[in-house]
Formats: sequence, C-alpha cells, structure tokens
Amino acid sequence: MSKDKAFVTEITPQGEDFSRWYIDVIKKAELMDYSPVRGCIVFRPDGYELWENIQRQLDQRFKDTGHRNAYFPLFIPESFFQKEKEHVEGFNPELPFVTEAGGEPLEEKLAIRPTSETMFGHMYAKWINSYRDLPLLINQWANVVRWEKRTLPFLRTSEFLWQEGHTAHEDEADARRETMQMLDVYTEFAENVLAIPVIRGQKTPSEKFAGAVDTYSIEAMMKDGRAVQAGTSHYLGTNFAVAFDIKYLSRENTQEYCHTTSWGVSTRLIGALIMVHGDDRGLVMPPKVAPTQVIMIPIGPPKTREQVIAKTDELFAQLKAAGVRVRVDDRSDVSPGWKFNEYEMRGIPVRLELGPRDLENGVCVLVSRVTGEKKQVPLDNLVEEVQAMLDEVHRQMYERALQFREEHFFSVETLDELKTSLEEKRGFALAGWCGSDACEKQVKDETGATSRNIPFEPAETKTKCLVCGDDSKHTVVFARAY
Amino acid sequence: MSKDKAFVTEITPQGEDFSRWYIDVIKKAELMDYSPVRGCIVFRPDGYELWENIQRQLDQRFKDTGHRNAYFPLFIPESFFQKEKEHVEGFNPELPFVTEAGGEPLEEKLAIRPTSETMFGHMYAKWINSYRDLPLLINQWANVVRWEKRTLPFLRTSEFLWQEGHTAHEDEADARRETMQMLDVYTEFAENVLAIPVIRGQKTPSEKFAGAVDTYSIEAMMKDGRAVQAGTSHYLGTNFAVAFDIKYLSRENTQEYCHTTSWGVSTRLIGALIMVHGDDRGLVMPPKVAPTQVIMIPIGPPKTREQVIAKTDELFAQLKAAGVRVRVDDRSDVSPGWKFNEYEMRGIPVRLELGPRDLENGVCVLVSRVTGEKKQVPLDNLVEEVQAMLDEVHRQMYERALQFREEHFFSVETLDELKTSLEEKRGFALAGWCGSDACEKQVKDETGATSRNIPFEPAETKTKCLVCGDDSKHTVVFARAY
Repeated sequence: MSKDKAFVTEITPQGEDFSRWYIDVIKKAELMDYSPVRGCIVFRPDGYELWENIQRQLDQRFKDTGHRNAYFPLFIPESFFQKEKEHVEGFNPELPFVTEAGGEPLEEKLAIRPTSETMFGHMYAKWINSYRDLPLLINQWANVVRWEKRTLPFLRTSEFLWQEGHTAHEDEADARRETMQMLDVYTEFAENVLAIPVIRGQKTPSEKFAGAVDTYSIEAMMKDGRAVQAGTSHYLGTNFAVAFDIKYLSRENTQEYCHTTSWGVSTRLIGALIMVHGDDRGLVMPPKVAPTQVIMIPIGPPKTREQVIAKTDELFAQLKAAGVRVRVDDRSDVSPGWKFNEYEMRGIPVRLELGPRDLENGVCVLVSRVTGEKKQVPLDNLVEEVQAMLDEVHRQMYERALQFREEHFFSVETLDELKTSLEEKRGFALAGWCGSDACEKQVKDETGATSRNIPFEPAETKTKCLVCGDDSKHTVVFARAY
Repeated sequence: MSKDKAFVTEITPQGEDFSRWYIDVIKKAELMDYSPVRGCIVFRPDGYELWENIQRQLDQRFKDTGHRNAYFPLFIPESFFQKEKEHVEGFNPELPFVTEAGGEPLEEKLAIRPTSETMFGHMYAKWINSYRDLPLLINQWANVVRWEKRTLPFLRTSEFLWQEGHTAHEDEADARRETMQMLDVYTEFAENVLAIPVIRGQKTPSEKFAGAVDTYSIEAMMKDGRAVQAGTSHYLGTNFAVAFDIKYLSRENTQEYCHTTSWGVSTRLIGALIMVHGDDRGLVMPPKVAPTQVIMIPIGPPKTREQVIAKTDELFAQLKAAGVRVRVDDRSDVSPGWKFNEYEMRGIPVRLELGPRDLENGVCVLVSRVTGEKKQVPLDNLVEEVQAMLDEVHRQMYERALQFREEHFFSVETLDELKTSLEEKRGFALAGWCGSDACEKQVKDETGATSRNIPFEPAETKTKCLVCGDDSKHTVVFARAY
C-alpha cells in the first residue's frame, strides 16, 4: 500500500461514522488535543488561530457598533446566583466551586463563571446613575466553565472561550433594538466570514436562556443533519435589573429599572465550521478565518529545483506583503502527492503549484480545496488572482452548505413524519406547534429532536401542531442538536 | 471654590501619599473598579483597552520571533504540582482549589492555574518525539490566579491577565538563546512602547522563579522610588522536562531531555506605566498604548460654534483615517477649562484646540500632556504634525522617566547607607553582595528592600558585600518593590 493511500484511509469516511470522522480530522489536523482535565481540551496553534481570526473580525464588528471591551472576575460569589430565580435553576447543576484557597477554606464558595450576567449586574448597579450613562455597551472576551456531563471537542467542553456582550438601556424598545442588532451581526458574520448559512429565529420558552424574557438564535446545519446553535442574543427585560438593582434617573426625573441584553458566541463556532464544511478528505477552512489561506508547493525535477524555489520565495513575499496568510512547503524529502493530501486534509483553501514549465510560461496553477478546480493564472497578476480565488472558494463553500441544507430541510405534518425525516433523511424539519410545553417535550422524548427556533422567515406557515393536531401557534424548526 | 478647582483637589498629591494618589487616579479615570470578590478587580473599558493595546503590540513581536498562540486548560490537577519540587513549594500557598462541580465532590482537587509550566509540560511530552519537532515555541494569553494576601489594583491582584510563553529546545544553548531573546523583546517593548526605561539583569537564587535554573528580569522604577518587576524570562534547564518526561530522539539517535524556557508579562504593566508616568494632575498615557491619543476640543463663542464644530469633525475624520486614536468633546454644557482638566487627568497625550481665529488662520493648537508645551500647527499638514507630536510626547516621557531614575539611583557601601537611600532619598541602590542567602535576608529584614536583579550593565562594580564586608560576588540592585 502506498504512503498516499495509507494517509487517506486514516480518516473515517463521514458516511461511515460522522462522529469518528470529526475526531479523526481535528486530531490529525492538530487543531486540538485532549487534556488531562475531564472535558477540557487544549487548543493547539492551528485551532487557536481559527479562534484568533474569528475574534479579530467579530471584535471589529462590536466596536463598529459602539461597544467596548472590559474584563470582569472569573469568580462569582455563590449568593449572586440566588438573586435571579430562573438563572440559578438553569446554571446551578453545571457550576464548579472553589471552596479553599491559600490553604484555607473560603467563607463563601466561589463559582467559576458559566456566564457573567450577575457580575455585570452588580457592577452596572454601581456605575449607572442617570439616563446620561445609557446605553452602556460592554463586551467581554473570556473563558467560562460549565461542568457538562457529555463533552465533545469545541462543541461542548467544560471550559470554553467566548465573548459575552452585556448592555443596559433606558427602555424596552432600545434594548430590543440592541438584541436584534447583535443577532444581525452574528448572522452577517456567520454567512460572510464563516460561509455558514443560518436560520434566524426565536427560541421557544423552554429553550430560552435562564433568566431571559426572549432569546433569539442563529442555527446551522451540520453535515450529519444535526443543528448547532451558533449564536444567541437575549432580551433580559428588567429581570436582572430588578435582581441587582440597576436603576437610573430618567429624563422625567424618576427612578427606573434598566432594560438589559446579553449575547454571545463561543469556540463552538470552530466545531460548527468543521462539521459544516469538512469532507472525506478532511477539513475545509473558510478562507477568511483559515490560519493558512494559501499553501505554495514548488514541483519538478532536482535540476530545476533551485530556480523554482527562488521564484516561489519571491511570490511568497508578494502574497505576504498583500496580507495573504501564505506558507511554502519546499521540503524535498516528501512527494508533491503526499503534500497535496496533507494540505487538503488540513483544509487549506487554495493550493498554489509552481513547476519549471510554469516558470517558463510565467504562470502558476491555483487549486480550489472545495471543487478541486485547477486554474492557470499569470504570475504578474498573482495577488489579484489569489484574492479572487479565495473569494470564489468562500462563495463555493457558502453555496455548497446552503444547497446541502436545502436538500436536508423537510416539511412535516406529524410526529411520525418527523421521525422519518430525522432517521432516514437526516436533517431539519419545519412543523406546526400548538405552543404547549407538553407537545414540545413529547417531540424530544420520542425523537431526540428539540425545537431549534421559531424562524423569522419560515418557508411556509403550518396550521396544525405536529403532536396534538390542534391549531398551530408557531411554525418551528425541529432537529437533533449538538 | 470653582468647579475646576474642586476637580483638581480630588486627587491626592503624589508627595503627600503616593498610594492614595494611585488609587484616586485609577478610580477617577475609570480604569478599574473593585469587584465583590476579594483581591479581584474589574478592568473597565479604558483600563482594558490599555491591555488590548499592550497585547496587540507584544503579540506581533512574539509572532515575528516565530511563536504561535495556543490555549491550555484553566484547571490543573493537584498531582501535577507535586512533580517539580521547587515549583510546588513556590506556588502551593497561593493556589485556589475547585473541590466540587455539578453538585458532586471531585475525585482529585483541581487548582486554578497560577502559571502553566506543568500543563504545558504534560502536553509537550505527548507532542515532542524527535528533534524535528523542536524548537516548540508556544505562547498563551490567559487569566491566572494567585491567592495573594495583600493586593493592589493592577500590580497585585488575585486574578490577573498575562501571557506565558513556553518553549522546548534541543539543548541548553538554544534554550538560553530563547531566554535572552524574550528578555530583549520585553526590554524593547517597555522602552519603545511604554516609554519605561528598565534595568536588565539576573535574579538572585532566592528571587528566581520556583523551578527555574536562572531567572532574568526587567525592573522599572516607580515615582515613589519603588521597583516593579515588569517582565521575567526563565531558563528552566531540564527541571520540567525530567518532571514531565519531555524527551526527544536526537540527531544522534539517542533519547534526550528537552531544555525548556518560560517567560511572561502581565496586567501589572498597567500599574507600572501609571506609577512611572503619572503626575499630580493625573495619568499620563504613553501614546503607543493610550486608548485615546488625541482629544479634540472646539472652543469659542456660540455664534462661531457651528463652523468650528464642522471643521473639527472634518479634521477628526482625517486623523481617524490615518489610524490616530482620536476623540472629540464638543459638549456645550461643560467649559473648555473643565475639559482641559478632565483630559489631563485621564492622561490623553495630546490635546487639540480649535477656535474661530485658528480657523481663519488655517491652524490649530496642539498641547503636550507631559510638558504643557503648546504648538500652533497648520491644518493642511495636521496628520503629520499630530504624529510628530505623539512621537515627541513618547520621547519626553521616556526622557523624564530616565532622568527620574538617574536622580534616584544610588551607590551604597553599607546597610546603613542603603537605609538612608531608601528612607530619605527613595530609590534604587547599587551594592556589593557576597552571594550568601543570609546577607540577602538581612537586607530584606532590616530595610524591606529585596535584591531586584544583578544588572547586566552595572554603573560600577562593587568589591565588598554591603552586609558582611566580605568580597563581593555580585553587584546587585536593591529596592523596595511592589
């Protein structure tokens, strides 16, 4: 068996076992490794750089919409969680507690933050005095911990990295405007940066954030038909303002409670982009977050090697100067074929091949990771050609993901039809729902699917509940989810 | 008493009580606030943005020297600390432990990381197989926790933010080269970005990092004559490699232990830059990290207001487009005098004043926060003038800090002379030291000063130990330290 063949067979095909494919590919591409702490992973450099690229581009969007970053403590006193009733019920089962420090027991146990509404609430109450202090628009990049029973690298880990925006407003209208604005930011980011089409909508009451009035989400479809909640934005009403006494002097000289919001995305986006775009050859990285966007591979016989490498280095410098994240693999002890497989597995969006004949003709070959399409391009216009190819790869990825979702998006009338869609066709299903917790629970118990959200723009409007057959209150997307 | 006067008197003068000055100014300028968790602060947006600016510029230097970022778990199993004897002795008294999670006691207590040599060690042992995997050059940006008895915002807090570089090498020479390279990076950064002159040198054995063979530091002088250790770089020898079994197959086909290094700077740099540069009017921000570099204040009577503001907005756009971090304060309900005080207190490096007469003459006035110097500059060359002024402010700050340090740097022969230098003159003292722990301890017990480092380039070489009078082994910088 040739080396190249051995290489490819190390990744389990998606169709055989999607979960194994996922673990194979993230381990082999060195995105992560398991740590010795239960449910915690190590983000290796190529995995962490995905997060750095996500972070930088999201952060710019947050700043462009008037937010500033701050940093709040990792520890939250146990008593803080008691102040908002739904919040404590939602998070208590997942909290790790520090009970001793410096060799002595603590007077009050300290939770490791699972989210920071309570700490922000406490500080906002100190900082906000009058309507002139509003809106207060702060974001935090931080690690958070939720002691999960079942974990999966990137998608559900005990410790993860995220951003959490927390804002305070004069009234409901302004807070709701913020909630929607941030959902828009997440949508635009998912589609234009990660090449992931998402379904925007509102969570049902049983699926909303613990302590929120309304939760909105963007939901993405993985290649096994399961859903990943890729971002959430919450209108918290005055729930946390009442719990933490966040009041302000209004324009009418009265004391009023603030209306607050929170919104977040996390390192689970890394898991999502892998499961949306990857294929049997390995990862496929969205160009705008790929740690390496272009891999350059000089080819040809030893006698022309020096000349080809010299030109490769020159082109490398041009691309790098233009801001392209580019690498060269000019090792001579590894075959070009092996390298092609290696960088396809790592999901590098564009491969650039340069051989002696290309050199003579003043051209090189660009290869798309998505379609395998090869394009001969002139060297004297290389930067533009590479940038165009990266844009094209992004477009191809988005289109392919959207097409996949459309092919796996079903309309169902009954619970049995839902089961069939989930089992045989693997995907999302649009169904009517009467609005009762009981029917929603029955769906979950019998199919393992949860309501993902009530989409803002459903493909059609359903009239009957898929469980009880009563009049439908909402048209809902159901799916099994990570 | 006028509003302006009331304003200024809210800050305790440095000469009256330096510690109170420090707390007054960081609270008033809204860099931080105390949190409800002992020893933990909230980094408010202007404080956090200092860190973001430090982070971005340091990160570029790390990447330029071949390092990549990664992220390792917050939790470290208790048993990991036992593996390196000195390390556990150094850190055990400061560790907080998670003992329960998800409502159940943990099988093994988990420490919150105070530093991550042990976790990196564990993973490096898995990842490193052969000399081809070396050097391995990874940095991490993270929060760490040390349960300190006495805390001071930014300078010593229970939780703080930092970066920790961890590298593994084939041999001592390469690891020592890395150790020195990173000390050079820190030095260049402190001087060229933070405008802080530093003393480079080696720590004495009693002051080195727990588990290191050699520790090197950069030490800065605060305006009260105390020292802040502004960065450290450690050569760890094979101590952690032996403890965690980090071995590699050498070029000679033998199994060898790696030589490792670690190096870090933290949010204490924020405290340092405030204490080095601030004055009785408040903060003085180094231009290269200042959240706002230029504050624009339109002035003049109401009738010309609209015209002046229109021009201000136009100039604002020009400066912003050129990458200057600029803000406008065009409020009409606050006097220019009040604004001048306010932004001086906040330490904004350059103030730009624009009035109706300036407008007619096509000029504006730039004012340096350091010297108060005013400079009339032509509007059609504003970007260059502003950038030149920012460079000039940086230079002025560095020169002023260097001059202060030289005026407070003493040469002493005896313990009594050291006491006088510390008590009456407040500063650093250069002295001979025989190399014994006993003499070093006596200095600390009698004067409160510790050996800061053994400087690479002492102003003079001492021949006698300041305590016992025996032959000096090292010429050492002593100072009281934060």
